[in-house]
Amino acid sequence: MLLPVSTWPDIESWLKRSKTIVVPIGSMEQHGPNGFIGTDALCPEIIARHAESLAPDDMLVGPTFSVGCAQHHLGFPGTITLRPSTMIAAMADWTESLMRHGFERIYWLNGHGGNIATIEAAFSEIHARRSFDLRGADNRPGLKLKRRDWWDFKSVMTLCNQLYPVGHGSHATASEVSVTYYGYPDHTRTDVEMSPKIAPNGKISDAVQYRRDFPDGRIGSDPTQSSVEDGEKIVGAAAKAVLEEVRRFSA
Amino acid sequence: MLLPVSTWPDIESWLKRSKTIVVPIGSMEQHGPNGFIGTDALCPEIIARHAESLAPDDMLVGPTFSVGCAQHHLGFPGTITLRPSTMIAAMADWTESLMRHGFERIYWLNGHGGNIATIEAAFSEIHARRSFDLRGADNRPGLKLKRRDWWDFKSVMTLCNQLYPVGHGSHATASEVSVTYYGYPDHTRTDVEMSPKIAPNGKISDAVQYRRDFPDGRIGSDPTQSSVEDGEKIVGAAAKAVLEEVRRFSA
Amino acid sequence: MLLPVSTWPDIESWLKRSKTIVVPIGSMEQHGPNGFIGTDALCPEIIARHAESLAPDDMLVGPTFSVGCAQHHLGFPGTITLRPSTMIAAMADWTESLMRHGFERIYWLNGHGGNIATIEAAFSEIHARRSFDLRGADNRPGLKLKRRDWWDFKSVMTLCNQLYPVGHGSHATASEVSVTYYGYPDHTRTDVEMSPKIAPNGKISDAVQYRRDFPDGRIGSDPTQSSVEDGEKIVGAAAKAVLEEVRRFSA
Amino acid sequence: MLLPVSTWPDIESWLKRSKTIVVPIGSMEQHGPNGFIGTDALCPEIIARHAESLAPDDMLVGPTFSVGCAQHHLGFPGTITLRPSTMIAAMADWTESLMRHGFERIYWLNGHGGNIATIEAAFSEIHARRSFDLRGADNRPGLKLKRRDWWDFKSVMTLCNQLYPVGHGSHATASEVSVTYYGYPDHTRTDVEMSPKIAPNGKISDAVQYRRDFPDGRIGSDPTQSSVEDGEKIVGAAAKAVLEEVRRFSA
Amino acid sequence: MLLPVSTWPDIESWLKRSKTIVVPIGSMEQHGPNGFIGTDALCPEIIARHAESLAPDDMLVGPTFSVGCAQHHLGFPGTITLRPSTMIAAMADWTESLMRHGFERIYWLNGHGGNIATIEAAFSEIHARRSFDLRGADNRPGLKLKRRDWWDFKSVMTLCNQLYPVGHGSHATASEVSVTYYGYPDHTRTDVEMSPKIAPNGKISDAVQYRRDFPDGRIGSDPTQSSVEDGEKIVGAAAKAVLEEVRRFSA
Amino acid sequence: MLLPVSTWPDIESWLKRSKTIVVPIGSMEQHGPNGFIGTDALCPEIIARHAESLAPDDMLVGPTFSVGCAQHHLGFPGTITLRPSTMIAAMADWTESLMRHGFERIYWLNGHGGNIATIEAAFSEIHARRSFDLRGADNRPGLKLKRRDWWDFKSVMTLCNQLYPVGHGSHATASEVSVTYYGYPDHTRTDVEMSPKIAPNGKISDAVQYRRDFPDGRIGSDPTQSSVEDGEKIVGAAAKAVLEEVRRFSA
Repeated sequence: MLLPVSTWPDIESWLKRSKTIVVPIGSMEQHGPNGFIGTDALCPEIIARHAESLAPDDMLVGPTFSVGCAQHHLGFPGTITLRPSTMIAAMADWTESLMRHGFERIYWLNGHGGNIATIEAAFSEIHARRSFDLRGADNRPGLKLKRRDWWDFKSVMTLCNQLYPVGHGSHATASEVSVTYYGYPDHTRTDVEMSPKIAPNGKISDAVQYRRDFPDGRIGSDPTQSSVEDGEKIVGAAAKAVLEEVRRFSA
Repeated sequence: MLLPVSTWPDIESWLKRSKTIVVPIGSMEQHGPNGFIGTDALCPEIIARHAESLAPDDMLVGPTFSVGCAQHHLGFPGTITLRPSTMIAAMADWTESLMRHGFERIYWLNGHGGNIATIEAAFSEIHARRSFDLRGADNRPGLKLKRRDWWDFKSVMTLCNQLYPVGHGSHATASEVSVTYYGYPDHTRTDVEMSPKIAPNGKISDAVQYRRDFPDGRIGSDPTQSSVEDGEKIVGAAAKAVLEEVRRFSA
Repeated sequence: MLLPVSTWPDIESWLKRSKTIVVPIGSMEQHGPNGFIGTDALCPEIIARHAESLAPDDMLVGPTFSVGCAQHHLGFPGTITLRPSTMIAAMADWTESLMRHGFERIYWLNGHGGNIATIEAAFSEIHARRSFDLRGADNRPGLKLKRRDWWDFKSVMTLCNQLYPVGHGSHATASEVSVTYYGYPDHTRTDVEMSPKIAPNGKISDAVQYRRDFPDGRIGSDPTQSSVEDGEKIVGAAAKAVLEEVRRFSA
Repeated sequence: MLLPVSTWPDIESWLKRSKTIVVPIGSMEQHGPNGFIGTDALCPEIIARHAESLAPDDMLVGPTFSVGCAQHHLGFPGTITLRPSTMIAAMADWTESLMRHGFERIYWLNGHGGNIATIEAAFSEIHARRSFDLRGADNRPGLKLKRRDWWDFKSVMTLCNQLYPVGHGSHATASEVSVTYYGYPDHTRTDVEMSPKIAPNGKISDAVQYRRDFPDGRIGSDPTQSSVEDGEKIVGAAAKAVLEEVRRFSA
Repeated sequence: MLLPVSTWPDIESWLKRSKTIVVPIGSMEQHGPNGFIGTDALCPEIIARHAESLAPDDMLVGPTFSVGCAQHHLGFPGTITLRPSTMIAAMADWTESLMRHGFERIYWLNGHGGNIATIEAAFSEIHARRSFDLRGADNRPGLKLKRRDWWDFKSVMTLCNQLYPVGHGSHATASEVSVTYYGYPDHTRTDVEMSPKIAPNGKISDAVQYRRDFPDGRIGSDPTQSSVEDGEKIVGAAAKAVLEEVRRFSA
Repeated sequence: MLLPVSTWPDIESWLKRSKTIVVPIGSMEQHGPNGFIGTDALCPEIIARHAESLAPDDMLVGPTFSVGCAQHHLGFPGTITLRPSTMIAAMADWTESLMRHGFERIYWLNGHGGNIATIEAAFSEIHARRSFDLRGADNRPGLKLKRRDWWDFKSVMTLCNQLYPVGHGSHATASEVSVTYYGYPDHTRTDVEMSPKIAPNGKISDAVQYRRDFPDGRIGSDPTQSSVEDGEKIVGAAAKAVLEEVRRFSA
């Protein structure tokens, strides 16, 4: 079930058989010369929705938390970021809204490495509010918060390495661009040239340094290899893995 | 141009000819027995994207700010709300990110009456930060922030009244449900019965009172009248009006 | 009863027969060449106190929340504003203090159009805290928060239109200046010339634009028409309307 | 000059000859069986306005910051408090608004012992924002923030000790009740009996302990001695001292 | 018992016989030409640990809250400050953590005059959260928060006046430098010349004014008099006084 | 140089030759039956100070940020945590204080895995403030923020694996307990029995689950192996690695 296109009676029914919801969470930031700015939000959304299509009765997908922590990409036009303190507040509000309805297990399917720290910090903030409750609310039946980066499944990683033995990279990767091309085939960019073909590797700190050291936005990748066909394979593998994990998480 | 499926060089080019961006902003909240929880986010998104399709060179559409202020709907499962203070912080972060790239005119296309107060408060907060800048930043070339509720065009209102002379209503309206049905035709709900056929009217204050006084979530509406065909007409009218206004706003 | 000049045993007695309090809420901002900076705080204070004088046993008036949201007036010396996030926090603290004593109905008599958005946002914030309470506090017997703009009664509007068929305006209006002249007759300004006699109309966004487009601070008004006598009539009409509404609100 | 009943051109003129403003700051809290809940806001307001009446050209009095830190009085109905963090934010907003107009010296005339800590904390917060300015704004021409408790002048203290050699006390004092009686002679309470005649002394921590240990709200005082006549003397002495100090502060 | 070098079973045992903990709280700020930047954190830490060594079973010493409010010292390199709002949040978190374990009496042994206001504000904030609890948590068995400045015991003051009849001063005092020399004898500075020998007295407001008026950082003091021997005496007197007071506080 | 026992002229001199400071950062949380609650703060402090002793002219060590994010340990008495949002605010204040003096490279030597997320989030928050500066402050010469977990050097890891081929573990590890025993030899606990000898492994989420699944607080470790001698070796290896890295970081 997809929450944004469901009705409230649908969700009321869902809660009678499950306390779990999957929330895609991403970022709005540059992804090099041929990758979409929305890549990191679109990937988990595409994968979660594909997983849902495989087993609509086993998976409820919430709205996508589409703008995350991308300060280090602000050197490139189009990037939008939340300050981490804002993101923590927003994730807490989403969680408290869901808890009020009876949800107890929230599975955040993440599409952005730069979100990891703040997502984990948000989990601590949410749990701390319960611990600091003046009446001991953290002793109530539990709340489980889980983060999963969509690429961090063995099956997905193996597939990506097979598809892109060279130039997979760490930002604007060949695989993530493929996933979005699969999701938005009308927007693929097939004619973009990049130089060097494989972007340099290196460390990032903040917006100014990032743009200086990685002038076209890529890190270590050659996303000219990306294709709709590859995207389909990756989405299939990731959706399967997510579905299995969500089933275990809900049990 | 749609920012989430554009690249950063696309946005860099855009900024050479325009300082304007359109941001759909909505809510994730119950919309009665046959309306989607995402209605208020989906409507401005559908309309903005349709407007963009009419004149891609004249309009840049950002990501949808999809969860807004819906405390009063929390009595119905599936509703997600931000606290107003969180929403203000998030809108400020979006705006400051965009300002850093050179955007100066942000047009928020709103889909939710309950957002109006907090959107306006956010505008004041953003402007106040500039006024309180220790070096007088509010004297710099200007930032313009504008809110437009998608239904609040004469052409759109006239059309809705023609389509639904009775039972248009004020929440879970016949028109907004039609817009989403047009956007998501595979998810239409044609078999939902409602009693009474036209929901009661009345005032709302908070979540508990809302659910008590409006048990199926509708206010004053009969959305069984909604259809894909009506949605197409409304989207057409609204998109045209938005496009014209954005052109004036950018001038 | 006027809370600031009452004793705590007075309030303890009041709470045995009523859970209602009226709080005047305004702003400290320029009101053109002959209007007081405190106009928007003074008007609801004068009206509320007059209403109280008509029926001291039926109405408890709290202290005036005198500084509100006036960022857009900061171009004029003397204007003081809260950021909306601060105003939300302060209104929440007032409300939570009053709730602790047993108040359940708070009627905010507002004197400033620019406050409307933030007052409504504050209501959502306060209710959201209850909804997010880890033990379900929003299911307790209710809290009612109501905003009423003092000019927004039919009787008051009719009177103002009769008194000022031309040049009533929308900021530094003839009526609000009259109300304050009635309240502070020693401070009336009878010798101020304005040019043009009726100020221009138009839209406002932020402090810099406001001062540029409305150089003497007025919008659409000719407050040279204002007088103590008119003020008395308006205060009488508004106080009567407020008193009636507060009685209904308390019932 | 009194800012709330002045016009913006008045303040524009003032700023040509002075950068100073006096802001009365108080609290809304119980003051025993015959003292007003507004005592601590009314005292500095009455004194500041009296001082202004003595030399209108030398003193500009702003609006009264009337609700402060009174958590420890919340056990008594009618008390309203800000959390210290809210009060800091509000004082910062007032200050930044005034700084934008060119004010550089803000003299807070305080009426409440319980405000002292938070006022000083707010000063540090405001100065810290300047120190943390990324461009070194704290090196600009200065901002001076000063707090003065109205009773803390030698002349005032001597007078109070003469008037009330016994039972002056430390909360709901004979002197502060007299000041408010002078300001609001129609509201004096002459028939209130208290037992014991002089309230006990002791320490306070929080709301629950305060009400338990000081059941009628007074600490160490016998405010049945208070009178309009005494109030007049005290206001005279305090206003004179304030006026002199403000002149020095402005120099 | 010293919490940082204790185990959790140690604290579990402690809580069976006491609800009290002592928390040294200081600052990291310049202390003139021969005083340590950490002086105000080190003094209460040294004294608290010495007190604990006298009666390990009667006193539990927590970690030192070592960075406080020192905006006014930021003109001198090495000074680190929290904004007051941050310090309030941090002290609240420490307190809520300790309350969760069952601590009910927290004795903050303070080493910095500039912390006093914010510590007291933090106490109000913490108590206010309890008062504003939607279920009336402030009626539960109590929380006691106490601040004690280490020099503010009669025995300590008398000793300091005996040791330094001239040039004790009010910042970078001879006594506090001695206490730290006793604690860190290897770091004493015996060869520092100061001119004038006794620093001037005066008022402080913010960082820029402080450095201008007190160019070497001292106020009123001659800390060339400081010595390890004096420090030992002062620590002995202060530790004894603290231990006695903590015993009373715990009773 | 150790900042807390240095003078401000020392730091002024330091800044003439270096813009770097090392800040140990840890946590105050349970570390099993024989580990100190302060372990995670003490380890980086001991190591940083040892490194400084090897090359005092090459390394400036700031005060220890001793309380971090430990919500998940709150089930064990003595644990103190900051909420992540508070920790972000505090780290920002430390950084902005240091930046005001001219520091540009801050090396946070971390002792707690649970801090990693929030430290990285704080870095983003600090950089975002610069990016959002209305005058483009992020284009100024740079600020570098680096986190290093003390155990995360190849030399240190190799040594720990040699010393503890079995039962090194992941919380209350044999190595961290040894480091603190080396630092505080008088507080070693040699007689604590643990059952099972090697604690179970597993995942952690929040405070309640942690205590339930790991009843004595350890995860995967057998810290009865810890000793002063081992600690000395580990501190030596880690201090050497830190010193080398800090030299490179400063270059």
